[in-house]
Amino acid sequence: MEICVVLYDQFTALDCMGPYEILSRLPGARLRFAAKKAGPVVTDTGMLSINAEVALKDVVRPDIFLVPGGPGDEAAAADGEIVDWIARAHETSKWSTSVCTGALVLGAAGLLRGLDATTHWASVERLESYGAKYMHDRVVRRGKIITAAGVSAGIDMGLTLAAEEAGEEFAKMIQLGIEYDPQPPFDCGSPQKAPAHLRDALLSLMQGTRAA
Amino acid sequence: MEICVVLYDQFTALDCMGPYEILSRLPGARLRFAAKKAGPVVTDTGMLSINAEVALKDVVRPDIFLVPGGPGDEAAAADGEIVDWIARAHETSKWSTSVCTGALVLGAAGLLRGLDATTHWASVERLESYGAKYMHDRVVRRGKIITAAGVSAGIDMGLTLAAEEAGEEFAKMIQLGIEYDPQPPFDCGSPQKAPAHLRDALLSLMQGTRAA
Repeated sequence: MEICVVLYDQFTALDCMGPYEILSRLPGARLRFAAKKAGPVVTDTGMLSINAEVALKDVVRPDIFLVPGGPGDEAAAADGEIVDWIARAHETSKWSTSVCTGALVLGAAGLLRGLDATTHWASVERLESYGAKYMHDRVVRRGKIITAAGVSAGIDMGLTLAAEEAGEEFAKMIQLGIEYDPQPPFDCGSPQKAPAHLRDALLSLMQGTRAA
Repeated sequence: MEICVVLYDQFTALDCMGPYEILSRLPGARLRFAAKKAGPVVTDTGMLSINAEVALKDVVRPDIFLVPGGPGDEAAAADGEIVDWIARAHETSKWSTSVCTGALVLGAAGLLRGLDATTHWASVERLESYGAKYMHDRVVRRGKIITAAGVSAGIDMGLTLAAEEAGEEFAKMIQLGIEYDPQPPFDCGSPQKAPAHLRDALLSLMQGTRAA
């Protein structure tokens, strides 16, 4: 089973590291990180680079592909080579997936027209501009397209997909292996739970980051 | 504030990617990945390499350092250069931290003698062989040493540490930013919750991986 994680400049690392840690452990999985060019790709913080093993053009007919989000999403969504690759890969994929604002790149490739989907809570309007209907769910599966909410939601999505591919028992074993028994010290992980002043402060910070 | 993530061959990526995603966003943070040599370091799955920006010997007096776990833990714990670096960094650090079996590397550096600590649930005996007392908690803080349980526990640890460094409000804002409102599809993330046959199957699989 060929799994491809699509990287681009200024992606958010955790978006794909949760799913990678899970999906790479499926029986028979060959997971490869790919970008327009093989080689190092720098994340949104500028403090980390991870290596694309292969160029996108050399990944043909992956069974599963995953697009992470991040401040580079708009550039990726405007990049013909990336978007064309996604549209083509989707024709034959078993699963086409995104985490966070990776959904916008799926949207730009035309995958989400008329479809329920999710993304980072701060990017709902951008998601809907591609014809998708935003669902306030952590993981949304419609046919073979699975979208996950912001960043850490990729872990929940990865386990959901692992159960589809290898059965619930195997997915549970992976969950136990990564000791995924979350105990966040605060209960502030969604806009419904966070106070308004924190939401506003974060939005200002994120707009600043995008502007920079 | 200088933060150092210590890499070694066959580390588990998610162990450090949760904390990285959080700690890199602290005000004034400069987070660097370091290894014995600067350059690519391959993870335990063999399907991913991430780049150490700098050699360990060139990271002097970090304010915070973090050691991830993974099947390479024993080699790291037996590596004089890594262990000496940790012992020296700990003399002046503000926080000395580990995720998963990274605690064993702290143990090898002599940091855990007589101390309460945690690690991956499958490595309790190895942890206690370094004189630590295993606590069945997700995050254990004793003085300036913080250890986290297996793999995904690094996210909870990262938020705990973020609150110490930048205040609870800021930590909550990061939690909202990474939409950390976990909804695992199964409740099987700890050995207390998992059925015995899944624990046994996983332990066999992990022993096979280590032997290979």
